Amino acid sequence: MPEVVFGESKTADQIVSIGRELIRGDSPLLVTRVAADKAQLVQQQLPELEYDAVARVLVHLQPGEDTWHGNPVVIVTAGTSDLPVAEEACQTLRVARVPVARVYDAGVAGLHRVVGDLPKLGAAPAVIVVAGMEGALPSVIGGLIRAPIVAVPTSVGYGSALHGFTALFGMLSSCAAGLTVVNIDNGFGAAMAVLRIMYRIQTPERQPVA
Amino acid sequence: MPEVVFGESKTADQIVSIGRELIRGDSPLLVTRVAADKAQLVQQQLPELEYDAVARVLVHLQPGEDTWHGNPVVIVTAGTSDLPVAEEACQTLRVARVPVARVYDAGVAGLHRVVGDLPKLGAAPAVIVVAGMEGALPSVIGGLIRAPIVAVPTSVGYGSALHGFTALFGMLSSCAAGLTVVNIDNGFGAAMAVLRIMYRIQTPERQPVA
Amino acid sequence: MPEVVFGESKTADQIVSIGRELIRGDSPLLVTRVAADKAQLVQQQLPELEYDAVARVLVHLQPGEDTWHGNPVVIVTAGTSDLPVAEEACQTLRVARVPVARVYDAGVAGLHRVVGDLPKLGAAPAVIVVAGMEGALPSVIGGLIRAPIVAVPTSVGYGSALHGFTALFGMLSSCAAGLTVVNIDNGFGAAMAVLRIMYRIQTPERQPVA
Amino acid sequence: MPEVVFGESKTADQIVSIGRELIRGDSPLLVTRVAADKAQLVQQQLPELEYDAVARVLVHLQPGEDTWHGNPVVIVTAGTSDLPVAEEACQTLRVARVPVARVYDAGVAGLHRVVGDLPKLGAAPAVIVVAGMEGALPSVIGGLIRAPIVAVPTSVGYGSALHGFTALFGMLSSCAAGLTVVNIDNGFGAAMAVLRIMYRIQTPERQPVA
Amino acid sequence: MPEVVFGESKTADQIVSIGRELIRGDSPLLVTRVAADKAQLVQQQLPELEYDAVARVLVHLQPGEDTWHGNPVVIVTAGTSDLPVAEEACQTLRVARVPVARVYDAGVAGLHRVVGDLPKLGAAPAVIVVAGMEGALPSVIGGLIRAPIVAVPTSVGYGSALHGFTALFGMLSSCAAGLTVVNIDNGFGAAMAVLRIMYRIQTPERQPVA
Amino acid sequence: MPEVVFGESKTADQIVSIGRELIRGDSPLLVTRVAADKAQLVQQQLPELEYDAVARVLVHLQPGEDTWHGNPVVIVTAGTSDLPVAEEACQTLRVARVPVARVYDAGVAGLHRVVGDLPKLGAAPAVIVVAGMEGALPSVIGGLIRAPIVAVPTSVGYGSALHGFTALFGMLSSCAAGLTVVNIDNGFGAAMAVLRIMYRIQTPERQPVA
Amino acid sequence: MPEVVFGESKTADQIVSIGRELIRGDSPLLVTRVAADKAQLVQQQLPELEYDAVARVLVHLQPGEDTWHGNPVVIVTAGTSDLPVAEEACQTLRVARVPVARVYDAGVAGLHRVVGDLPKLGAAPAVIVVAGMEGALPSVIGGLIRAPIVAVPTSVGYGSALHGFTALFGMLSSCAAGLTVVNIDNGFGAAMAVLRIMYRIQTPERQPVA
Amino acid sequence: MPEVVFGESKTADQIVSIGRELIRGDSPLLVTRVAADKAQLVQQQLPELEYDAVARVLVHLQPGEDTWHGNPVVIVTAGTSDLPVAEEACQTLRVARVPVARVYDAGVAGLHRVVGDLPKLGAAPAVIVVAGMEGALPSVIGGLIRAPIVAVPTSVGYGSALHGFTALFGMLSSCAAGLTVVNIDNGFGAAMAVLRIMYRIQTPERQPVA
Repeated sequence: MPEVVFGESKTADQIVSIGRELIRGDSPLLVTRVAADKAQLVQQQLPELEYDAVARVLVHLQPGEDTWHGNPVVIVTAGTSDLPVAEEACQTLRVARVPVARVYDAGVAGLHRVVGDLPKLGAAPAVIVVAGMEGALPSVIGGLIRAPIVAVPTSVGYGSALHGFTALFGMLSSCAAGLTVVNIDNGFGAAMAVLRIMYRIQTPERQPVA
Repeated sequence: MPEVVFGESKTADQIVSIGRELIRGDSPLLVTRVAADKAQLVQQQLPELEYDAVARVLVHLQPGEDTWHGNPVVIVTAGTSDLPVAEEACQTLRVARVPVARVYDAGVAGLHRVVGDLPKLGAAPAVIVVAGMEGALPSVIGGLIRAPIVAVPTSVGYGSALHGFTALFGMLSSCAAGLTVVNIDNGFGAAMAVLRIMYRIQTPERQPVA
Repeated sequence: MPEVVFGESKTADQIVSIGRELIRGDSPLLVTRVAADKAQLVQQQLPELEYDAVARVLVHLQPGEDTWHGNPVVIVTAGTSDLPVAEEACQTLRVARVPVARVYDAGVAGLHRVVGDLPKLGAAPAVIVVAGMEGALPSVIGGLIRAPIVAVPTSVGYGSALHGFTALFGMLSSCAAGLTVVNIDNGFGAAMAVLRIMYRIQTPERQPVA
Repeated sequence: MPEVVFGESKTADQIVSIGRELIRGDSPLLVTRVAADKAQLVQQQLPELEYDAVARVLVHLQPGEDTWHGNPVVIVTAGTSDLPVAEEACQTLRVARVPVARVYDAGVAGLHRVVGDLPKLGAAPAVIVVAGMEGALPSVIGGLIRAPIVAVPTSVGYGSALHGFTALFGMLSSCAAGLTVVNIDNGFGAAMAVLRIMYRIQTPERQPVA
Repeated sequence: MPEVVFGESKTADQIVSIGRELIRGDSPLLVTRVAADKAQLVQQQLPELEYDAVARVLVHLQPGEDTWHGNPVVIVTAGTSDLPVAEEACQTLRVARVPVARVYDAGVAGLHRVVGDLPKLGAAPAVIVVAGMEGALPSVIGGLIRAPIVAVPTSVGYGSALHGFTALFGMLSSCAAGLTVVNIDNGFGAAMAVLRIMYRIQTPERQPVA
Repeated sequence: MPEVVFGESKTADQIVSIGRELIRGDSPLLVTRVAADKAQLVQQQLPELEYDAVARVLVHLQPGEDTWHGNPVVIVTAGTSDLPVAEEACQTLRVARVPVARVYDAGVAGLHRVVGDLPKLGAAPAVIVVAGMEGALPSVIGGLIRAPIVAVPTSVGYGSALHGFTALFGMLSSCAAGLTVVNIDNGFGAAMAVLRIMYRIQTPERQPVA
Repeated sequence: MPEVVFGESKTADQIVSIGRELIRGDSPLLVTRVAADKAQLVQQQLPELEYDAVARVLVHLQPGEDTWHGNPVVIVTAGTSDLPVAEEACQTLRVARVPVARVYDAGVAGLHRVVGDLPKLGAAPAVIVVAGMEGALPSVIGGLIRAPIVAVPTSVGYGSALHGFTALFGMLSSCAAGLTVVNIDNGFGAAMAVLRIMYRIQTPERQPVA
Repeated sequence: MPEVVFGESKTADQIVSIGRELIRGDSPLLVTRVAADKAQLVQQQLPELEYDAVARVLVHLQPGEDTWHGNPVVIVTAGTSDLPVAEEACQTLRVARVPVARVYDAGVAGLHRVVGDLPKLGAAPAVIVVAGMEGALPSVIGGLIRAPIVAVPTSVGYGSALHGFTALFGMLSSCAAGLTVVNIDNGFGAAMAVLRIMYRIQTPERQPVA
């Protein structure tokens, strides 16, 4: 697992000093929730960090192979405004060297896209579904596949979208059984939940304990 | 339009005395939200009132023809627990002599039922969609047809379903444009909204006003 | 129906590239929730887009006739602060080539204005009522006319106005039967709901389906 | 001012012992929020207490004249379900020997009743307006008269009526200036607020203080 | 009563054009919720408007005498942060030519100030109590005097002060009977409620109506 | 410290079996939140348990002396409805053999009672203040004494009292510095907080740790 | 996967008729949320259904082997009141023939129990953690093991426990990364989420899709 | 006790004039919630005030000895974002001349730090625990020591952290008995609560009062 720094409440200087230490330690590094201008300040001192402006993360990859050789994790979004959250999940998986397939803009007006990609979703080790507003997409997908699903509500919408709580509550109340949910806009957390599942898929034969 | 009495906060005696007066007046009558035992007390004194135990309404129809001769209004439900609310809407339309078609249990596990009935939905003067829990069904239908849709959230569900508010907020935040919404469990109100639309379909040529 | 782009979460460049494609396709275009400075950037590259500063929309009309030749849709507001939401509805209808009549500032202090315009309201294919604060206006109008009414709560007010939720809940709880409601500040959605009704008024004789 | 006991959280025995002491003291007595069966138990031991089943109060009047000889206080209600709250206010004023005029069922469907009674409302020392659901009535009346208005929201309604909070917030956000509001279902409190006003009307010439 | 303009959602130009018309009409004018920079823009074109930076109001007084010759209205505040709301009430009364007495900073640490001023409070035609945070002051005063009290919750505080709702709910739930309450930060509304009471004190002998 | 069992969600049988074991172990026992009928069932099998119907607790005291020989802890209540919560605190302290002094009914109408008892309050090792509705009492006392204060909000009140949350939020937002707060109706928790303070008063000389 | 019926909103007769059909179809059956008296009525007609009074479920197992031969799923609870929710999860897994290990009463006072069972938790295909009140247990466990964790908030607690929402929000906001959460009291849903994970562990080699 | 000024809602000039007066009076001074730029303006006129940029306080110490010679108060934080609140508590205690020991970053990933410092925590006159997000840390510590604990929820986190209310409600609902809680981000208040406890530890022998 990569080292992770929550960048939002830290200054550029704090990120630099933490980052420097971790990179020396040779582990991959992920800094989440970094605004563009703060990222620039960090990169001036740590040019080996790469910035993704959509996901708003700084990453440092260690050389080497992917840790996963099966089907890719699939990340589905309902609308274009959900992209930053989905890409935060993508980058988290990338730092952990897990391949990802994207199925974006698959909301109400794009349900055919979901239907077309069902085999890919059904074969994934896990599926992350990112949706704001009414957050109905995980319910629809949950009724169609048996793979593990982690639903991420986003704060997209206004008024009765309640800054993401309508999507959150909708996903928790879904009539599709076996969905799990993470905090609003928490793309990073969804990826970490998937990494827990993949860790277990890869090490299932562990000896039973008394 | 029928005379309507909100029965919940009235005693059997109050319903009887209001009902007696209105029936004399020869207009059809609808009493909503009447529990079974209260209904029985009312019927002992007003046997001409018919009770529908699912919709929890007392109705008195006036003889005569339907007021509407086009396609039926379609009422769709997500799950069996939404039935009482849907049937309240059905009975309200029935008292107004409007024919109704039911498409029930069309939630996530029954989306094929919606797809199979799309021509019927698309040809309806209006569609009422009743759903609790995450309330995703109106979004799905709204993306597939152009007819007017009145969405009714129900208080079905627990915990994060928030007694119907999750469905309510989800319907209001739907990414399908042009849905309209009524109060939680308000099957009667949805039917009245449909009657306003049908009144206008039937009398569209009214002279312009200065 | 026009092509619609939700402008709030998009950059000027994104709007330009989407807009360019849609205008080529010869369909009318509506971009909602565009701040004045962003609109200016878009117009520099797409001068055929017209900006309405009150409604905060960019529109591109296709030449041709109105799609509706009956009475105009009536849009009523309670106060001057409700104007942007009302004008968003007006512009949406305009792009769809539907004529509109405005009855503005008809709140508590202007009830006489509503009373004077009742014939116009009663003859409209549908009425949109826009109100913030306590949102009482749709209740009053709902008790006076039989036409379809779409109520739009606005975020006007402070403290116990709850950013529009007091008006929203008030409209949903109205004692006037058959009102329908859309999301807070959703003038666009109200217009789309009216377009669904008008589509049905114009095509009511569609063949029944088995 | 009468002695007042909040009866809801007290046993019949507690009410009897408090009541016995107060009646001995020769002051008028009001016990609010007393259910019918508890009232019966109290009356068996204190038969001089009179029970009003609608207002759910026990009262003991002292002989003597009215304390007020001007126009009566007017109490207006929106619907029949608001009666218990309105009658609690009436009984409170009655115990204080203030005459009351009732204008009931004056909601959306009965606005003409308000209009017909405007002279009476405008001449009252104060007006109490009781309304549940969307609570729009005080706004309408507030725009029509200059007398002091105390608005009482009631818990009448369901779903988005929020157990009276929608009416409460609506009254507090009213666009009619100078309304004041008391707690949900607090008919007693509204009457007490009116008694403060009437006390001041009767004793306005009090000497200035340094 | 003065003409009142809610300035918050209006531009300087809109305020100027409304103000110009009203001043011509010779009535006194009050513009509430005007930020300092906007006020300056207005004053450049309407120098006869006077700006109060604490109350954030623009006022135009008409020459003439006070409308009230009895004891002054008393305005009490709990803390210094409540000043802007209290002064908005003061200025509103001033435009209506009603004299005001201020008892400021009378919260928990200053209860002795309230006790010292009790005769003044008890002799006032009405008392306005302004308090944020837990909003306990009106309860304390309500238990000590019989005059009418209008309580104004303010948005002073943080966290569990809930932007003024804790004070609002506390005042509505006060165990001191007969308090009335207005919206959060609504100093203007409190003054208008007091003006209704004073109007009635001055014209109590109006003929009874049939 | 006594053994404590939360009785609300346990059957009489469960309480008996837990109680039997603990009493054997010779430690004092407190079972909280036990309804009267459940208590009777428990006492039939464990007659050594004493039931306090107001505090709704079952207690078993061990013989021996008080653990505290200083001034008594003082428990103050605002109104009679706060009694059960206050007595739960009293009984908890009693089982821990700590003497208690009660100052009850000291709300707005009884502030003189607080003033009269100030020396007792100021000399207490800690003061517990129990209040519902607007919960103003701890603010008043907090401004008058320097002893530790634990405030307990109660669910007494209706409507805007929000089942105790208004008192809770008011106490947390109090302008009297240094109040601490426990959960709504949690008399037991307040007593336990006081026991932590008294434990420290009695053992302050503990050796410093490196 | 077993057939599942949500029993709460269904009558005994409805459960019998659904159950009869499904048992004929030879699939295992689970009926959740069945009160004891309703269960008895069902069992009179369907004696092959077994009732678990703690989990409140009716189950019908099909003969045959376990579907899972690895380490058992571990279910952890914080307190005894969380048992019904945990047992609903256990029974759901049992009907799916998945072995379960229980680690109960491992809350704050029993953290040593968690520590002692860490090897078992770390080796599980997935861990379900059930907790009410402040819901801190999943955070603690999440920091100690790498296996997938599904957290279930329960409605245990009162006042600020908010009927389970405090635990729900706490779990979603946990500083332990990669926790996933289901609806309040939804033991069934947590088990279904685990079954999705186990399905994937057992069928990971599925062919990649283009 | 020091003089305290709540700086947030005051201008630099107001702080200077209050500060000047208090410093003259020779008492120590604490100004809380002062942003860096405002602090600079104040210091230009009152250079004897020292600014702490993390705690955001201005302090003026009086010469002299510590008021406390026992073990230090211990302040524990869960994460680095909780620092400003913890330091506000530290500075408050420092102005009161009470020594403090810091145990920072002791959240889920740092529980070993708490365990290592348990003797120090258990020997403290009181412990302040500062935590945001799910706020689980006070529960864990409360189960391990008997000293008084004041828990401070912080607004650290996003989405379901509810601006600190999730931590607040979690601490109030903690299964560890005897925790007390102050308002969100109220480090100052927590320190003042500790000062009340220490005042009592130092003066416990006060004579009993009749």
